[in-house]
Amino acid sequence: MRSFILELEGLQNKILEMGGLVETSIHSSIRSLVEREDRLMADIWATETRINQLDIEIDEFATKLLALHQPVAKDLRFLTAAIKINSDLERMGDLAINIGQRSVSLLGRPPIKPLIDIPHMSRTVESMVRRSLDAFVQRDEALAMSVLMADDEVDDLKNAIYRELLGMMEAGTAPAAPAFDLIFIAHNLERVADHATNIAEDVLFVIKGVDVRHHRLA
Amino acid sequence: MRSFILELEGLQNKILEMGGLVETSIHSSIRSLVEREDRLMADIWATETRINQLDIEIDEFATKLLALHQPVAKDLRFLTAAIKINSDLERMGDLAINIGQRSVSLLGRPPIKPLIDIPHMSRTVESMVRRSLDAFVQRDEALAMSVLMADDEVDDLKNAIYRELLGMMEAGTAPAAPAFDLIFIAHNLERVADHATNIAEDVLFVIKGVDVRHHRLA
Repeated sequence: MRSFILELEGLQNKILEMGGLVETSIHSSIRSLVEREDRLMADIWATETRINQLDIEIDEFATKLLALHQPVAKDLRFLTAAIKINSDLERMGDLAINIGQRSVSLLGRPPIKPLIDIPHMSRTVESMVRRSLDAFVQRDEALAMSVLMADDEVDDLKNAIYRELLGMMEAGTAPAAPAFDLIFIAHNLERVADHATNIAEDVLFVIKGVDVRHHRLA
Repeated sequence: MRSFILELEGLQNKILEMGGLVETSIHSSIRSLVEREDRLMADIWATETRINQLDIEIDEFATKLLALHQPVAKDLRFLTAAIKINSDLERMGDLAINIGQRSVSLLGRPPIKPLIDIPHMSRTVESMVRRSLDAFVQRDEALAMSVLMADDEVDDLKNAIYRELLGMMEAGTAPAAPAFDLIFIAHNLERVADHATNIAEDVLFVIKGVDVRHHRLA
């Protein structure tokens, strides 16, 4: 039993490692945009390779623990949550790549506006990712709930960015291609926030044994 | 043991039911776009309610079977795959809602172009969804592989749609807002295809016990 506890900790540490890498990649992808340089893209790709390795390792590890220890109740919920959280983190890594590629594609044209809302949105999203994983490690219900709450703020920021850029395009004050790229970056940040929300919901399921999806905050 | 086999079949049937609903919703959301009417949106929302119920039921069912029967090898892989496939289907349902909402928002403006590529893309994507679930039920490796292959075609279609609409916007022959809506619809269809690809990868994992992600077709 002692060894099972150690193995669960090992699995949790792998998930934390993956979460740290995902957070770094998102941060770097937005830095590429704000600082207008493509140097960070190589780091993002290298991180992606490690994230993909961890994705496979975590799935194999969780499945092995299910088979060997045949856990019930909270440990079973932990392991099924680990499989889902892993999948969310892997997709966040893909989204960081997408954001980085859009950021690099923007380098070929002059900036169309000062960037304020997107870096703000990114800070909120990165904080959601970090808090969802902290909530997972500390089994902290209040922290998980705070992630669910932040999702609305991210939606509002995304809608504001969307409206502003659409308005500029329609007024002819911004060319379509770079305005699009910025909207897609905001859209991908929102998807990262959705994945952080999924993780927070999984954490609540581990803690409470109750599925909060589809009727949360009702 | 006989009862476990029946229960696995029951779980599989729930997944098939959910897959059928998702396929119908995607189809209706694109019909709303092509036929320019908002009547189908009520059906799409009603289907979404049932999809969300099934999402919770399937998770609970799979977790219960893991706890009660403590399966190993292929049955264990089947159950962990069921949890992941469930999550992919649920997100496809959300994407159908997004597509439906964009389709309805387009009704307020005159059409900017005849729709050919998006219905074509949707047919390909719906077929990917259907084949990924058929491959799951029949444990059909070749069918699962065919879904992975189709993903590139969908990417090409999406890029063609993106280029055409961006070109129209830059040439001033299409207003920004409806062009955006069409691009987002294509983007969401591509995301549905990505989820079908995830399912096909999970099916290959169930059949072969080998994780094909991140090095497929290499």
